[in-house]
Amino acid sequence: MNAAPVNPPPRLLMGPGPITADPRVLRAMSAQLVGQYDPAMTAYMNEVMALYREVFRTANRQTLLVDGTSRAGIEAALVSLLEPGDRLLVPVFGRFGHLLAEIGERCGAEVHTIETAWGTVFSPEQIEEAVVAVRPKVLAVVHGDTATTMAQPLDDLGEICRRHDVLLYSDATASLGGNPFETDAWGIDVATAGLQKCLGGPSGSAPITLSDRAVAVVDGRRHVEAGIAEAGDVGRGVRIASNYLDLAQIMDYWGPRRLNHHTEATTMLYGARECARLLVEEGIDCAVARHALHGQAMLAGVLGLGLEVFGDLEHKMNNVVAVHIPDGVDGDRARAALLDDFGIEIGTSFGPLHGKVWRIGTMGHNARKDAVLTTLAALEQVLRQAGVPVTAGGGVGAAREVYA
Amino acid sequence: MNAAPVNPPPRLLMGPGPITADPRVLRAMSAQLVGQYDPAMTAYMNEVMALYREVFRTANRQTLLVDGTSRAGIEAALVSLLEPGDRLLVPVFGRFGHLLAEIGERCGAEVHTIETAWGTVFSPEQIEEAVVAVRPKVLAVVHGDTATTMAQPLDDLGEICRRHDVLLYSDATASLGGNPFETDAWGIDVATAGLQKCLGGPSGSAPITLSDRAVAVVDGRRHVEAGIAEAGDVGRGVRIASNYLDLAQIMDYWGPRRLNHHTEATTMLYGARECARLLVEEGIDCAVARHALHGQAMLAGVLGLGLEVFGDLEHKMNNVVAVHIPDGVDGDRARAALLDDFGIEIGTSFGPLHGKVWRIGTMGHNARKDAVLTTLAALEQVLRQAGVPVTAGGGVGAAREVYA
Repeated sequence: MNAAPVNPPPRLLMGPGPITADPRVLRAMSAQLVGQYDPAMTAYMNEVMALYREVFRTANRQTLLVDGTSRAGIEAALVSLLEPGDRLLVPVFGRFGHLLAEIGERCGAEVHTIETAWGTVFSPEQIEEAVVAVRPKVLAVVHGDTATTMAQPLDDLGEICRRHDVLLYSDATASLGGNPFETDAWGIDVATAGLQKCLGGPSGSAPITLSDRAVAVVDGRRHVEAGIAEAGDVGRGVRIASNYLDLAQIMDYWGPRRLNHHTEATTMLYGARECARLLVEEGIDCAVARHALHGQAMLAGVLGLGLEVFGDLEHKMNNVVAVHIPDGVDGDRARAALLDDFGIEIGTSFGPLHGKVWRIGTMGHNARKDAVLTTLAALEQVLRQAGVPVTAGGGVGAAREVYA
Repeated sequence: MNAAPVNPPPRLLMGPGPITADPRVLRAMSAQLVGQYDPAMTAYMNEVMALYREVFRTANRQTLLVDGTSRAGIEAALVSLLEPGDRLLVPVFGRFGHLLAEIGERCGAEVHTIETAWGTVFSPEQIEEAVVAVRPKVLAVVHGDTATTMAQPLDDLGEICRRHDVLLYSDATASLGGNPFETDAWGIDVATAGLQKCLGGPSGSAPITLSDRAVAVVDGRRHVEAGIAEAGDVGRGVRIASNYLDLAQIMDYWGPRRLNHHTEATTMLYGARECARLLVEEGIDCAVARHALHGQAMLAGVLGLGLEVFGDLEHKMNNVVAVHIPDGVDGDRARAALLDDFGIEIGTSFGPLHGKVWRIGTMGHNARKDAVLTTLAALEQVLRQAGVPVTAGGGVGAAREVYA
């Protein structure tokens, strides 16, 4: 096997994520390693905790990284909270709601779902009604689902959950950093994320934060593993079904005891740290406003090209838009032309939207004017080549008006 | 929170891993991202499969990466093979045997262990006797356990397992690339590894390989998740308890169907690819010989300093040695002095060896003469300062004789 050095083609990644990483993140990730318990390393871990408290808008002490992609963070949250037989309620408004439900099933939970059509979200009343009917231990809801581009409003759910003594878990992988997300103000007990969307990094590290209420549940299932347990480490509660994703052990590793669990993925931690530094430097509110601006410009641009947009625009995330593929156009062929001729990637779709919409992102490092205008200019050319009647300059012009 | 750019202090990592990453790996990891299904990305994934076939010495088609640290690979193997109630046999000769047993328990398996004193390994006869008594579905055995520095001989176990219709799983995280490891010739059904030892990369990606026998078991439990399942995707067998570590889904993602599962951790994949390229370029046999040479030099060096070595030297791994902390020396204080004054890290120990031995590694990028001699020179100074009578130049001199 004779493989050449890694040398990827230049791409502008304007899909639903992963997107082009911020070069600062890649530079941070090229730093040399230090040992697992080096004072420099434990200091970086503590800084990561503090930085992600700002990103998640929380005072939660237990704010740390799970070593895996965002899906690892989701499973860590659910498997650590849910015992077999516990009731889980998942409002499903896209692919990732199905994912939460399916992970809950694998945890042995009794899973209840409510569903709404793709492109819509739930009212707080619909969710409270289901909470009352199901009386779940955990309400798990995706914040932003890139499959539909919708963001479920969460601001009323914490209060509902507290009133009914339910734990509220939300996955904010697709939304965090590009849309308002208030862990403490909204009363969210556990939130998870990934780096590959508005945070501007590569996939492979999952920031997570846990409220004291959630920590109490997880810590009530603490079982230190045989090879390193000491005299006082008596297991309690129903053991968490995963070792790797056992948040009780992961908290012990990130905590003052520094109890060995996995070997922290140092390079990913450097990357996660830089993603958070970028956001905190810019200011979370400013980053959200930037995503709103460039998302608005992209939306205006695709409408200006004469395209139709999918879903309830009132609840669209700032950072992604779903565009109906015009009649007679082969969506995958058009995407390939955009990639081959312009080096620009936009996204395909899942499930009921497969073959029907493209998903175009403006997030993280690529929530920028030049990225938006270049994408619209190239898309115009590709549509024209595919025989779609487009107004010359209509996309770029409409986006320019948003910027003016 | 005002955190400075990542800028780790210069360290020579001579512990049991993680060790200093090869600079080529870090450079590969600084490459920009491409999309998840970009032809460049899927080509890299295919190359990774081919490269790790060479590293694992196997023709197994299913040779790929699990996105997490080596422990994620271990759990993926066990949770995908073991159904609740299945019997698992683990010969325990150090900390990581306990880990395999404990992960097996969390999978709901009926776990049986046999134990041998730390610093020793099992004979094939002892293992066969236990196989006959337990009749497990899976025999899981660590190849090299850094906790004790021992490598369990595996070359007879494949034949034993086939004779008794048992699946053989081995974790080679600590040994692969620095010690002989022959997946196919030894009849190993599943092998897992990590990058942070002899492969010279950072923790965070877990190469894994599965034989056709193992694939048949895993594929017999295939359940495509709800959000993306198509008409023909009827679930079969007992569903794997983890979604994230479900090897049936991960194989579908790496296979021709490219069925979406997680978002591949592109930067870690670039790193894993470069780790394998380095080994394949050097030649696996040459890399093993290099680890043997420098491990021998380090062993001679610590003996030349008048230190005593732990464990059965006949079965010591090439890449790590455990050294008794001399009487009257505070082991952690001496390690701190080595780190503070010389920038060199050596390892502490777990369980019964905690506080009794240091572990010194010579692996990956640091299996080099200058790293060995510098470590021995610095260790001599630290020991002298701690009041240990050492022969001046005894460590470096003895290592030099090995190199001569």
